[in-house]
Amino acid sequence: MLNFASDYTEGCHPKVLEALTRSNMEQLTGYGTDTYTESAKNRIRDFIGCPDADIFFLTGGTQTNQTVIDTTLRMYEGVVSAQSGHVNCHEAGAIEYTGHKVMALPAHDGRIDAEELDRFVKSFYDDSDHDHMVFPGMVYISHPTEYGTLYSKSELTAISGVCRKWKLPLFLDGARLGYGLMSKSTDVTIKDIAELTDVFYIGGTKVGALCGEAVVYPKGDAPKQMVTMIKQHGALVAKGRLNGVQFDALFTDGLYTEIAKNAIDRAEELKKVFADRGYSFFINSPTNQQFIVMPKKTLEALEEKGVIYTNWEPYDEENMVVRFCTSWATTREQIEALAEIMDARNS
Amino acid sequence: MLNFASDYTEGCHPKVLEALTRSNMEQLTGYGTDTYTESAKNRIRDFIGCPDADIFFLTGGTQTNQTVIDTTLRMYEGVVSAQSGHVNCHEAGAIEYTGHKVMALPAHDGRIDAEELDRFVKSFYDDSDHDHMVFPGMVYISHPTEYGTLYSKSELTAISGVCRKWKLPLFLDGARLGYGLMSKSTDVTIKDIAELTDVFYIGGTKVGALCGEAVVYPKGDAPKQMVTMIKQHGALVAKGRLNGVQFDALFTDGLYTEIAKNAIDRAEELKKVFADRGYSFFINSPTNQQFIVMPKKTLEALEEKGVIYTNWEPYDEENMVVRFCTSWATTREQIEALAEIMDARNS
Amino acid sequence: MLNFASDYTEGCHPKVLEALTRSNMEQLTGYGTDTYTESAKNRIRDFIGCPDADIFFLTGGTQTNQTVIDTTLRMYEGVVSAQSGHVNCHEAGAIEYTGHKVMALPAHDGRIDAEELDRFVKSFYDDSDHDHMVFPGMVYISHPTEYGTLYSKSELTAISGVCRKWKLPLFLDGARLGYGLMSKSTDVTIKDIAELTDVFYIGGTKVGALCGEAVVYPKGDAPKQMVTMIKQHGALVAKGRLNGVQFDALFTDGLYTEIAKNAIDRAEELKKVFADRGYSFFINSPTNQQFIVMPKKTLEALEEKGVIYTNWEPYDEENMVVRFCTSWATTREQIEALAEIMDARNS
Amino acid sequence: MLNFASDYTEGCHPKVLEALTRSNMEQLTGYGTDTYTESAKNRIRDFIGCPDADIFFLTGGTQTNQTVIDTTLRMYEGVVSAQSGHVNCHEAGAIEYTGHKVMALPAHDGRIDAEELDRFVKSFYDDSDHDHMVFPGMVYISHPTEYGTLYSKSELTAISGVCRKWKLPLFLDGARLGYGLMSKSTDVTIKDIAELTDVFYIGGTKVGALCGEAVVYPKGDAPKQMVTMIKQHGALVAKGRLNGVQFDALFTDGLYTEIAKNAIDRAEELKKVFADRGYSFFINSPTNQQFIVMPKKTLEALEEKGVIYTNWEPYDEENMVVRFCTSWATTREQIEALAEIMDARNS
Repeated sequence: MLNFASDYTEGCHPKVLEALTRSNMEQLTGYGTDTYTESAKNRIRDFIGCPDADIFFLTGGTQTNQTVIDTTLRMYEGVVSAQSGHVNCHEAGAIEYTGHKVMALPAHDGRIDAEELDRFVKSFYDDSDHDHMVFPGMVYISHPTEYGTLYSKSELTAISGVCRKWKLPLFLDGARLGYGLMSKSTDVTIKDIAELTDVFYIGGTKVGALCGEAVVYPKGDAPKQMVTMIKQHGALVAKGRLNGVQFDALFTDGLYTEIAKNAIDRAEELKKVFADRGYSFFINSPTNQQFIVMPKKTLEALEEKGVIYTNWEPYDEENMVVRFCTSWATTREQIEALAEIMDARNS
Repeated sequence: MLNFASDYTEGCHPKVLEALTRSNMEQLTGYGTDTYTESAKNRIRDFIGCPDADIFFLTGGTQTNQTVIDTTLRMYEGVVSAQSGHVNCHEAGAIEYTGHKVMALPAHDGRIDAEELDRFVKSFYDDSDHDHMVFPGMVYISHPTEYGTLYSKSELTAISGVCRKWKLPLFLDGARLGYGLMSKSTDVTIKDIAELTDVFYIGGTKVGALCGEAVVYPKGDAPKQMVTMIKQHGALVAKGRLNGVQFDALFTDGLYTEIAKNAIDRAEELKKVFADRGYSFFINSPTNQQFIVMPKKTLEALEEKGVIYTNWEPYDEENMVVRFCTSWATTREQIEALAEIMDARNS
Repeated sequence: MLNFASDYTEGCHPKVLEALTRSNMEQLTGYGTDTYTESAKNRIRDFIGCPDADIFFLTGGTQTNQTVIDTTLRMYEGVVSAQSGHVNCHEAGAIEYTGHKVMALPAHDGRIDAEELDRFVKSFYDDSDHDHMVFPGMVYISHPTEYGTLYSKSELTAISGVCRKWKLPLFLDGARLGYGLMSKSTDVTIKDIAELTDVFYIGGTKVGALCGEAVVYPKGDAPKQMVTMIKQHGALVAKGRLNGVQFDALFTDGLYTEIAKNAIDRAEELKKVFADRGYSFFINSPTNQQFIVMPKKTLEALEEKGVIYTNWEPYDEENMVVRFCTSWATTREQIEALAEIMDARNS
Repeated sequence: MLNFASDYTEGCHPKVLEALTRSNMEQLTGYGTDTYTESAKNRIRDFIGCPDADIFFLTGGTQTNQTVIDTTLRMYEGVVSAQSGHVNCHEAGAIEYTGHKVMALPAHDGRIDAEELDRFVKSFYDDSDHDHMVFPGMVYISHPTEYGTLYSKSELTAISGVCRKWKLPLFLDGARLGYGLMSKSTDVTIKDIAELTDVFYIGGTKVGALCGEAVVYPKGDAPKQMVTMIKQHGALVAKGRLNGVQFDALFTDGLYTEIAKNAIDRAEELKKVFADRGYSFFINSPTNQQFIVMPKKTLEALEEKGVIYTNWEPYDEENMVVRFCTSWATTREQIEALAEIMDARNS
């Protein structure tokens, strides 16, 4: 089996597991008050260069998006997102469930455009009837996006500028942030993100942890009583150590970026495997998710050989868009094995 | 340090950790569709004697109570609970957050009374104005209760009878279910619970797991699209294996009950330590939570020696009610060390 | 027929109807931007002595309580109310529906007690676990209460003091405020209410209007975007004139208090009818709702003669507590007719 | 002043006012249990040809949409609407506030297309990931639409067919239903609507009443405990007579359709005024809302003469789209006066 279906097919990185094992029988206090959690927060504060950042650990991405957005918005506000944003498409209505509209902007390979955002907000306030409408209350972007694409620093700066102009908090969904930071073609650093956004999260589930996302308020201005609201959203785990120990390990000795780099290196090799064999890419992704246009027949043959991938969407009668992911766990041998299977198939 | 503050001070039972370690690099599908999760469900079905049970794994107790209650109730209904019920007191309003009232009945050492429940529901329907009131829509009990107490089989049967008479689903919060099942003085088996309730959960977080609760619909009648609603509540983890592997291990070779029995055995010893030294119990608890009335001065002395416990509530000017917990991880040596410290203190 | 069942059995006071008729064909702007609404607001500002008050007109009591409470509370807060408070008992869970717990205090003839409130809030903050609990976020009182009783000025001052000490907004439900203000035994004026509370409403539905409640923020500090949130709660009527014209009439030439006084005068006569004939009162109510203990047989006889009242609750085997209401519309003739029927019955 | 800004500038139709006046001092029971409400329901049952219809009276349009949609949808479902639908654009997020996503389809002059609806639902179920998405749970259409346009009988039949194929309740927002039914160019009767939809409402606020909308479940299958849920949504008025008397009058002797016809006749004359003078229509509306493209300069001149209309949206640099409405209250004299002003302006 060669499984490229997603970046959450394995458990956690061995060093994370080691940390869990090492600390397992220590008696610690609950609900995120333990020493590992405190240490993890400090390591993250160092990593992002914000000594005063407020940090909270939640369990998964949808939960994090739901809790951050609901606790940031005022009752009469909605969240602006790309049409293709995870919060708009694939969270079973978790945002609306908390009472807020997702206000969709056009997606450009998964990204929103600063000018379109500005026009959208301006036209809202220009509308004399806007008191009867949902107010744009914050902006959600994902980086990498759901299509593996990235914002450039100038794009992110422009979006941040529009947000500040209109006093809209900017929230960056970093479910796969590590892969974005380690991309060969990005000029966005974690410090840029900490400076340009108001809240973001550093994804653990898809970057080496069993579970866990670190929500960061870089300016230290988290909502009042955030822990109470996390609990109210069903998102506070009793054994907070589970998140704390994992993030403490991920942010020790550069593990988080090191393992993210592996995914990027493997993705580059993966791209070459497809490009060398003449396949075209649905989207030009510089991260660990690759979207390839492939004939259905080829895909069937690959499946027979045990290659697993994700069907993304139909391309035309004969072709599908499929997703192949690499991760911290992908090995060079797996990429080579894939190449061999593809060549064997053609012989 | 001798930490008796709660039953979630350690990580997970070594065999659970072993299972996580063994399976760590296996590539598995996400969101609870993996083979370990399936195996865990089947082992639980065997354990409870319900081959058709619907089972879902969630991460923590508040999340589980919130999701089960909200997906069971109709919009105009509330949940009936003991005044002291966890959903009424210590979940930061997680139930009301989903739109439903918690309707409190008197608590008798943490338990509700079947007759009082019947009278409450009858008086609701007798009230000619009840169309303008919140309808009782389900009944929540905890077993063990928040005070460590248990329902007897006849009490549980009576409550179940009242629920069926009024067509109210009965939900049993089993955050500490293992400790309840292994109590020396219970006549309630897991099969009784499966028969007498409509939905219950088997707690993992407090009985040997890092996280995780198994929600069981013994009759196989879970709400339609339950997975979608779990996602909508932010409660669906991507790496469902985290719950699956742990519960698979807990329900292999009787581990769950075996480790729960350890907590009970230690609790019996703990009770003896206090009783022998003349302390009285605030509540007569047959499970792993013990509530003891102790002079503040004694407590200070214990703290100095590194004994950790939980302050429960003031008793009178000079005494406090404190909670000492045992768990799957408590050793005989720890109990003996506590006894020594107590005696040393007095010498 | 002699109908004393409630204070909303008739339409509106003739002068209110006249105002609706007079203004009917005027073309006015919508959603409360019309000139009558503006005039009504100014008249109310005069009446309460607060030239800067923010005022909004809503349609009914439950809607008003729901909207005011939900827009005042933070997400993690609940509203403190007497156990017998309308929001706790008779609004079909409208408060919980918006995500907030109603936190019940003991009711003393419908009133809460300032000291008990203080102890409740203090004990919340004293509880080391309070971050996992619902925060008391505002205080709800009704004046008159659901039992027709009133707070004295010193009681109201004490409650207000506790609220300010703990920074809890105080909300007074004035569904029957007019009757409270005109009671013979009250020392609370509208200016006291404007000074001692943070938000209150002046009920129209039960005091001479077809519908409508005037929500008043005496200090002019209504929540931002209140109109948008009223709309979001389904509570903004297109023809805002319906409320505006009615309240404009009610607050012209003292109509509101004049018609409320009629209800009080009639209630005094009503009380005498019952007292003279030896009946006892369940509660000593100084307003337009009277609660009388009467034998079931007597009630049957009254019903046969066409007397209508409201069954409140069983008193004992042979007696019921029943409610008789007067209103702006009750006439002396109706009271006399009731007296005659009662005497005829006995002859 | 010549006010064409909306169809809710006047109070109520004189005959409605007469009915309110006539019944004003009658003592009636509350919350919609009165005899006028019952009579109104029966008259509406006759009008729509559905003797078993369930009917409820609410106060306004947003409230009605919110309550009907929220009580129809399951927790995990959203409502499908045209992009331009009132629930999607102009209700301050009232639908999302209740936890549900509005799922927007392309609007064709305000209408959705049956085939696009079918494709949308099919592609949802074809998506292998749809358990992680919001389920389409009902379909919302307005008739007339927000642009004054109407569905033809064949369009409505096609949409109804798609809804039944996918088991999606079809909800028709009839805020201006009277004007739709009386349009010269419609082939859709009230009986068609009763047959083809699952729930609809007959607007009163914009068609002759002071307030009030009649929600109709033509098959008599309203949600269980609908009154309780209406109360829970803050939408149950104590003096239900206010709605009952008005609708009873509107459906006596064909008043509702007669006054709607007046609006249509005036709209035809209005269209002629503009068309004769060479103005073009932004949309071809067969009902009482007319959308005209006019030079900003012309508009300024009209305003100076006291003509009031609604700015809809910018058309180009020099022109605006404006809305002129007629209503039950518009007179032929008003249309003639408008024509005179327009001609005077040009001379």
